[in-house]
Amino acid sequence: MASSQSAKYLSGDASAINDFLDKFDTFLIDCDGVLWSGDHLFEGIPQTIDLLRSRGKRTVFVTNNSTKSRAEYTKKFAAKGISCNEEDVFGSSYSAAVYINRIMKLPAPRNKVFVLGEVGIETELQAENVPFIGGTDPALRRDITDADFAGLADGSLLDPDVGVVLAGLDYHINYLKLATAYQYLRRGAKFLATNTDSTLPSHHAFFPGAGSCLIPLTNMIRQEPLALGKPSQAMMDAVEGKFQLDRSRTCMIGDRLNTDILFGVEGKLGGTLAVLTGVNKKADWEANEAPARPAYYVDGLADLLAVTK
Amino acid sequence: MASSQSAKYLSGDASAINDFLDKFDTFLIDCDGVLWSGDHLFEGIPQTIDLLRSRGKRTVFVTNNSTKSRAEYTKKFAAKGISCNEEDVFGSSYSAAVYINRIMKLPAPRNKVFVLGEVGIETELQAENVPFIGGTDPALRRDITDADFAGLADGSLLDPDVGVVLAGLDYHINYLKLATAYQYLRRGAKFLATNTDSTLPSHHAFFPGAGSCLIPLTNMIRQEPLALGKPSQAMMDAVEGKFQLDRSRTCMIGDRLNTDILFGVEGKLGGTLAVLTGVNKKADWEANEAPARPAYYVDGLADLLAVTK
Repeated sequence: MASSQSAKYLSGDASAINDFLDKFDTFLIDCDGVLWSGDHLFEGIPQTIDLLRSRGKRTVFVTNNSTKSRAEYTKKFAAKGISCNEEDVFGSSYSAAVYINRIMKLPAPRNKVFVLGEVGIETELQAENVPFIGGTDPALRRDITDADFAGLADGSLLDPDVGVVLAGLDYHINYLKLATAYQYLRRGAKFLATNTDSTLPSHHAFFPGAGSCLIPLTNMIRQEPLALGKPSQAMMDAVEGKFQLDRSRTCMIGDRLNTDILFGVEGKLGGTLAVLTGVNKKADWEANEAPARPAYYVDGLADLLAVTK
Repeated sequence: MASSQSAKYLSGDASAINDFLDKFDTFLIDCDGVLWSGDHLFEGIPQTIDLLRSRGKRTVFVTNNSTKSRAEYTKKFAAKGISCNEEDVFGSSYSAAVYINRIMKLPAPRNKVFVLGEVGIETELQAENVPFIGGTDPALRRDITDADFAGLADGSLLDPDVGVVLAGLDYHINYLKLATAYQYLRRGAKFLATNTDSTLPSHHAFFPGAGSCLIPLTNMIRQEPLALGKPSQAMMDAVEGKFQLDRSRTCMIGDRLNTDILFGVEGKLGGTLAVLTGVNKKADWEANEAPARPAYYVDGLADLLAVTK
């Protein structure tokens, strides 16, 4: 490795952390794997967020997790002792809803969305006044029947107004939903994804992520979805537009090279900080085929607290 | 297209069909998309099978559909008016069970299989005396809970004797099963698939196939399964061994270029016959990137009956 490519290690070095903090006004912060793993909050996180704010930094939580709306995220933050309002959260569900409503602007009546995902997607679509079906509808949470096969095949069970399939993490994925989404895609619906993370860090382990819930559809139609979460620069443009940030004074903090760090590098932000509490480790960005390399790294985000000791 | 690459069209040409039949002693025949689509039997199929047998041909039904065992397939054939015994059927579930039991020969106690799939796989594993869990177990046909997340993450819900994950078409696929299979794979279980067809033809339409049920696992572990169905030559070797056939006098009949026709071409069979009643059409094998090209084709298998008229 050329030393110019090496990420600077900040843990335990208060002076280096102070220099790092001085370079930025805004921190875009990933949640899963950085603040917590599933329901387990990492030690010192609320104090670290307070530190950043006490130094006058803006903190924006940028998450690919589509299962929660911004309002639900705000509640989770409060429960974990991190003060935060809805405007500080930018999720992939919100990003997708904004894209559908303000960029795609589908003409009625073929402007309905079939959702493969959880309530977070539904809430953000509602907030943007986008009509949808599927999602958490209990009518789809069951085994497929012969009548379903027949009605999906001849189209009689399909809503002719569906023009988009929006897929994300779905804890209730099943054959009926996949078969239904596939029929809409075969009939020309646009294929969008909140994000395509293959795994979801939770309980100090990994579980199927949004990308693994929707890849059966990609496999069947042989076409990738347009992803509206990190590292999509459509999301970066939306974040920049909303928060009016100076990219050169903004740092992306995250645990994944192929989403968080790539998002910051491709967005030409002033810096990127990797944490080792989630998916990727140092060896991953030192590998030749690394999708992106961070400028800085710490063992855990709370290591930034060294400047207060 | 060079004429030497062109598939010979047999429909309506009794003389050409007679010449074709004379070249072969054994016909390996795909089922879905050739004999039927889902529960819809194509016209003239029982008579066509009778024709082949009346000419002294051996007919072997070689199917990637893993949801039925050979015994269940035999019942389906009888219900459709096609006489057939269990020994005439060679399915991907049987192929996988034979591979696990006779080729892998896993040492006990780590010789248990976690099944992602239907009863057809279970029946064939039982027939080969391979221990298994998962599959149609009702305990896994439910939503994932917090206790599941915790127990899968720390391994307490996992069976330490599982050494193989065998995946196929699963009409009851869900998040809990995918998360469980993934944990076994992360702990070093071998990844096998009955087949990797992306779609399943049914009701004159297409539905998610085995390959689309298991691709979330491939996506998470970044490794393809060893597939035991067509076009895997492990299956061809098993078919050849069981039926003692002369490959030069054997013809594969199927609707899919990337499974059936490729299976026959790579197996160096004497011939391949494509039918247009399933997935692929003539334009598919005339395309530059065609995965394989048939030697002969008919609109439907029953067109062979022209020699009797």
